[in-house]
Amino acid sequence: MLPPQKIINDPVHGFINLPAGLPFALIEHPYVQRLRRIKQLAMSCMVYPGAMHTRFQHSMGAMYLTMQAIDTLRLKNIDISPEEEEATVIATLLHDIGHGPFSHALEHSIVADTSHEEISNCYFDYFNQEFQGKLTMAKAVFSGDYEKHFLHQLVSSQVDVDRLDYLKRDSFFTGVSEGIIGSERIIKMFHVIDQQLVVEEKGIYSLENFLVSRRLMYWQVYMHKTVVSAEMLLIKVLQRVNELIMNHITVFTTPALHFFFTHHIHIQDFHKDPQVLEQFSLLDDYDIFTCIKVWQQHPDKILSFLSRSLMNRKLYKVEMNNNVFSDEYVEQIRKKTIQKFDLQPDELDYFFINETVSNKIYDLEKDSILIVRKNGDIVDMADATDQMNLRELAEPVTKFVLAYPQ
Amino acid sequence: MLPPQKIINDPVHGFINLPAGLPFALIEHPYVQRLRRIKQLAMSCMVYPGAMHTRFQHSMGAMYLTMQAIDTLRLKNIDISPEEEEATVIATLLHDIGHGPFSHALEHSIVADTSHEEISNCYFDYFNQEFQGKLTMAKAVFSGDYEKHFLHQLVSSQVDVDRLDYLKRDSFFTGVSEGIIGSERIIKMFHVIDQQLVVEEKGIYSLENFLVSRRLMYWQVYMHKTVVSAEMLLIKVLQRVNELIMNHITVFTTPALHFFFTHHIHIQDFHKDPQVLEQFSLLDDYDIFTCIKVWQQHPDKILSFLSRSLMNRKLYKVEMNNNVFSDEYVEQIRKKTIQKFDLQPDELDYFFINETVSNKIYDLEKDSILIVRKNGDIVDMADATDQMNLRELAEPVTKFVLAYPQ
Amino acid sequence: MLPPQKIINDPVHGFINLPAGLPFALIEHPYVQRLRRIKQLAMSCMVYPGAMHTRFQHSMGAMYLTMQAIDTLRLKNIDISPEEEEATVIATLLHDIGHGPFSHALEHSIVADTSHEEISNCYFDYFNQEFQGKLTMAKAVFSGDYEKHFLHQLVSSQVDVDRLDYLKRDSFFTGVSEGIIGSERIIKMFHVIDQQLVVEEKGIYSLENFLVSRRLMYWQVYMHKTVVSAEMLLIKVLQRVNELIMNHITVFTTPALHFFFTHHIHIQDFHKDPQVLEQFSLLDDYDIFTCIKVWQQHPDKILSFLSRSLMNRKLYKVEMNNNVFSDEYVEQIRKKTIQKFDLQPDELDYFFINETVSNKIYDLEKDSILIVRKNGDIVDMADATDQMNLRELAEPVTKFVLAYPQ
Amino acid sequence: MLPPQKIINDPVHGFINLPAGLPFALIEHPYVQRLRRIKQLAMSCMVYPGAMHTRFQHSMGAMYLTMQAIDTLRLKNIDISPEEEEATVIATLLHDIGHGPFSHALEHSIVADTSHEEISNCYFDYFNQEFQGKLTMAKAVFSGDYEKHFLHQLVSSQVDVDRLDYLKRDSFFTGVSEGIIGSERIIKMFHVIDQQLVVEEKGIYSLENFLVSRRLMYWQVYMHKTVVSAEMLLIKVLQRVNELIMNHITVFTTPALHFFFTHHIHIQDFHKDPQVLEQFSLLDDYDIFTCIKVWQQHPDKILSFLSRSLMNRKLYKVEMNNNVFSDEYVEQIRKKTIQKFDLQPDELDYFFINETVSNKIYDLEKDSILIVRKNGDIVDMADATDQMNLRELAEPVTKFVLAYPQ
Repeated sequence: MLPPQKIINDPVHGFINLPAGLPFALIEHPYVQRLRRIKQLAMSCMVYPGAMHTRFQHSMGAMYLTMQAIDTLRLKNIDISPEEEEATVIATLLHDIGHGPFSHALEHSIVADTSHEEISNCYFDYFNQEFQGKLTMAKAVFSGDYEKHFLHQLVSSQVDVDRLDYLKRDSFFTGVSEGIIGSERIIKMFHVIDQQLVVEEKGIYSLENFLVSRRLMYWQVYMHKTVVSAEMLLIKVLQRVNELIMNHITVFTTPALHFFFTHHIHIQDFHKDPQVLEQFSLLDDYDIFTCIKVWQQHPDKILSFLSRSLMNRKLYKVEMNNNVFSDEYVEQIRKKTIQKFDLQPDELDYFFINETVSNKIYDLEKDSILIVRKNGDIVDMADATDQMNLRELAEPVTKFVLAYPQ
Repeated sequence: MLPPQKIINDPVHGFINLPAGLPFALIEHPYVQRLRRIKQLAMSCMVYPGAMHTRFQHSMGAMYLTMQAIDTLRLKNIDISPEEEEATVIATLLHDIGHGPFSHALEHSIVADTSHEEISNCYFDYFNQEFQGKLTMAKAVFSGDYEKHFLHQLVSSQVDVDRLDYLKRDSFFTGVSEGIIGSERIIKMFHVIDQQLVVEEKGIYSLENFLVSRRLMYWQVYMHKTVVSAEMLLIKVLQRVNELIMNHITVFTTPALHFFFTHHIHIQDFHKDPQVLEQFSLLDDYDIFTCIKVWQQHPDKILSFLSRSLMNRKLYKVEMNNNVFSDEYVEQIRKKTIQKFDLQPDELDYFFINETVSNKIYDLEKDSILIVRKNGDIVDMADATDQMNLRELAEPVTKFVLAYPQ
Repeated sequence: MLPPQKIINDPVHGFINLPAGLPFALIEHPYVQRLRRIKQLAMSCMVYPGAMHTRFQHSMGAMYLTMQAIDTLRLKNIDISPEEEEATVIATLLHDIGHGPFSHALEHSIVADTSHEEISNCYFDYFNQEFQGKLTMAKAVFSGDYEKHFLHQLVSSQVDVDRLDYLKRDSFFTGVSEGIIGSERIIKMFHVIDQQLVVEEKGIYSLENFLVSRRLMYWQVYMHKTVVSAEMLLIKVLQRVNELIMNHITVFTTPALHFFFTHHIHIQDFHKDPQVLEQFSLLDDYDIFTCIKVWQQHPDKILSFLSRSLMNRKLYKVEMNNNVFSDEYVEQIRKKTIQKFDLQPDELDYFFINETVSNKIYDLEKDSILIVRKNGDIVDMADATDQMNLRELAEPVTKFVLAYPQ
Repeated sequence: MLPPQKIINDPVHGFINLPAGLPFALIEHPYVQRLRRIKQLAMSCMVYPGAMHTRFQHSMGAMYLTMQAIDTLRLKNIDISPEEEEATVIATLLHDIGHGPFSHALEHSIVADTSHEEISNCYFDYFNQEFQGKLTMAKAVFSGDYEKHFLHQLVSSQVDVDRLDYLKRDSFFTGVSEGIIGSERIIKMFHVIDQQLVVEEKGIYSLENFLVSRRLMYWQVYMHKTVVSAEMLLIKVLQRVNELIMNHITVFTTPALHFFFTHHIHIQDFHKDPQVLEQFSLLDDYDIFTCIKVWQQHPDKILSFLSRSLMNRKLYKVEMNNNVFSDEYVEQIRKKTIQKFDLQPDELDYFFINETVSNKIYDLEKDSILIVRKNGDIVDMADATDQMNLRELAEPVTKFVLAYPQ
């Protein structure tokens, strides 16, 4: 067990010992502390007012579960050295470090063509340099290059501490109590065979429940139609600001946002220029909402309309369907919207959204969940359950979204 | 809202107002009070020590949910008169009144060829007589004869207050927290169309979660193999006592148990002779465990062996499989057991159990769960979900059980 | 950390690892298993239907907290050997082993002039003999004779794992949520100085809350007037049976109860005759309630009246006052009761109760709670708090009770 | 019961029906929606990462409790008209509307010589005008001018829905579980006599627990020394900005903050100029943190030092004592600080804090908590309890604080 430095109170897991040494130094680092200012669920608080919890809390929670999992595996005689433990704890701690504020929306607007995973890699490199190479093993665990593959799977797989924490935590803070999952029970069922993370057979019902809860949370919280509406509106807001700035129209921005609106940052810039990571690390929810508040008064009608809609929660009406909308219906709404707001053709895009959202709750192809039978056989979870058709759960569900001002 | 008489504290739902008048008189009646002495989960406390909660608590909880559901429906302008409310509350209150202690085991041993539902009917008749016909409507609601069918469905259907309470309650007391369901949310989604209980479409994920949680609780708690082992042992104990008594061998029994061991009671006797219902109402968990404790010292080797096994939790080893056991394997265990205990052929039956248990989590045929779409269409839940193959969930799962002393 | 053998699910603390070896052997022993059949809160379920939890659950919970406390102390470099850990775990596990069913009532009726602590000692001696002297250290820890006094204080003091578990547990099962205490926080604040258990100063508000919660639970749950009424009635029932048996009137009893009604057992008999401990170990809640049910039909009018009152929850009316009742008022009630039930002078005692109950929430004299200041000073908690007058809390509160049939 | 318009999910109280009509219109108003952007506990999240909940959530929760309280009182035949219910609901909804971000700190810096209560009054006036006088009764209830005084007491007194919600809520989100109070139980004990809100005698232990929990939360959460340190630092930051701006040094500010830094706003300005209220309504946590992030780079050494300290959680070391610090000790720290940071005399004030914080948990003088005895007598809670010396709890506790950079 890593010696603790400090204890924090987590309403989800209870007391969490923060491990001393390098993990603690990382927790204290401003780049990690900034996660305190990024909400885990972005716009979900528009529907679930309790969902104000942060990526920082989630990182602490996932770290706690990693420590629990390692304790469990050691009791089952799986060899994990103190160095490996620390590396896995650090990999967990930093697994979401690449997220910016309103990550989904910003990935579309601010930082082009990159993902939070790639940015996370930059952070690992930065920290590894700052701490004289001490994160080398942690990075290997994070990226899946470390020989004991199960350590990576703890951090990132279809039944990782990330999901085991966030489902429980999101359920707790939104008040969607039925989304609760048996994180502790699943962890107690973890085992390792041939360096692969497996789950003991008697955990199968907990796993089913875990997948179905994830599906519930996905459609009821993460992709709740009002949440989707707010996120799409945010994308539009940022898109409009981009356009105005490109046309040299003055728009109030915080310095960090200014940097990204005026530079066209690609992922390679993160690697080349430390300034980029530093600026990125200054971005958080506060920049976004501060600016939107100010933009409500902007002389550009479109920007001020979009900003007021978001700020005062006059969100676009959203229709979400399992079937594609008919061309006639789409056309009819489109026309109505143009008329109502007296729009130019190139403006319509800000007022009319026609997209799809999609999710699959189990992926048969990558890093599937393995079950170990009592006789030692290892099978894919999809083949182990006595009923739930997991192969079917691996089919993506797609929903069609139409959104426009009311 | 029925005026309250008293408040009780329920750790699951919080404060529960006990409605005044006839419902309160019934709650106070010794025949209902006896449910305080019958554990909801019978032998599950052998595995989950917290599962000591009683059928009385569950009845109060279900009654509370009925009152919540009626409040919700009235806000949606469904007409429910005070008399109908009271009748539904009473039907809920008494829905489990026909259960004896360790109901499953006793139905095999003590009262032949009857079910707790039939005995419940006798209680309704008894109370209706005692209270001058005031339970006529309640009985109609209970039995499904009342014109407003949805009132019956609240009390008894595939998404009734019975299940909405017991899943949540059993989850709470066993500590299987992942079994928790969104009872409140599902109830908020209740509606009535053409006198049928329906659920609004946006409750669909909660319903999926409800079914999967029920499956989890079924196999992880109700049919946990150690629980099954204990219940089968209890059946064997009672069977042996029956045999001894038929052979005129003296066996200690409490008076109420004595009555049932020495009379061969059929369901028609309940109707004919009020004495039967009275004796049945004296039976509870206390009779069973008191006797088993005494039987540990009985001169009959088989009875004392079985009783000590149960009392000291030296339960039979249980194997539970999705596939049928091979004849050779069964034969091998059978022989080993005969040898080890030096058994006569007619004694083997007490030491060797080969049975099946089975469950289906959704029934397509009787009183299926109806969903009302936003456009007013009503569809079977099995056809409303965008993914979970409910038609498949309607297939029964059968498991094969082999049990024998270790 | 003691290696675990098995895991149980506790709704209060979550998963509890049962330590292997001697502790597990003790848990499996019929004398400990019997605690599964003794409710922790005796008659409190008459008011709080959820309060069905057992002394077994509490013993597991207290054991868990002992293991937590030892982990915490070791992180603070307090030396505790594996043997000492095991001894303390066992001392906790067995700390309530001397309780019979409805302990308070039975101490007045069945086993004369003894306390559950003394009977616990007999159990320790019995187990120590059965397990070849391996409980010697556990007994020393239990009785306070072991040199590291803090180990005893963990098990038995004014802030021991006993109270830290039962307050939390009773609060959970009764639904009196405000009674919840910060067990985990208090344990995290434990330290040891000069072999004394102390609490770090910043735990002071948690301790205040702990004492006030205990006071709340005491008067609102343990000594709730309806609970007191039921317990007094039980004492009267047992007293009447005693009297009838002494007068050679036949009364149905279970064998274990029969033993105690027909022998006059004193504590020395426990030591002299192993049969006594064995019979005592067969007694549990089941004997008591089974008999009372039967006694409802006894030809003795007083016994049947008392038994029916208890069984059907037609409890005596109780008045509970902070001031002594006036002689006139007592006399008036007494007379009314005599008249109403047409009583003989020697019968009144069964129908009229005039007693006191009393409690103090903090004891200044024995094993007081010690606080360690940041500067290392150790002070009595009563002198450490900045406000709550603990010296005053050490004054006993006495309430006067009058009870009689309605 | 007010007809509901919408339901929100509250992790603390469960589902909350938002009442239709005027209350719902107010909830939707941008001036109320802004409370979504103001954390209830300001800097407490520096110590308790879960404490991100907002004043909006608290307002919804308090409103819910008001509706519960009114239901309870009506069951006790207290006459409350639908208009009075709506007025009380609105008064609750708006009770905290006058709070700005980090209220305590801003009251010292931005808006001179005023309190959030006075600003609340301005909001009431504003809304009353906007909604054609429909808030007249609500304002009377809020300010205590309405004849049925108990309605005011529900909203504002020593046992009001404000405290009943925030203690429970803060306890929930910080994870300080022992701070939980019996809000529901206390509300069930509410009664009204002579238009005064009273509590039934049997609620006395819940009230004691409520006061002691408040004390616990006060010192352990609200005035936790790290929280105090962060708030004092924020005051210093704002003070420095003020000074720089007065000296015409350019400082980045958001427009709303700019308004308050460049105008010297007094409470009368709120009344005179609607622009002031509008600007105030644009201020929230986002302005503050956005600016502090930017100020980290300000050329003024003091401002950047203070901002970095706060942002990166390198807070001042705080000593908090029950006794006044000796002059020598204060002098010694002062000198050390001057030396270490090479300070000019007029700069010391930014680096050295010597203050007091104080609290009393019960006020004997204003709107004390009244208990109604079973005999109908009404007494001050301080005289009703059988033990806790409430008169003593009415003594303020003062602590002395010394803070300086580490």
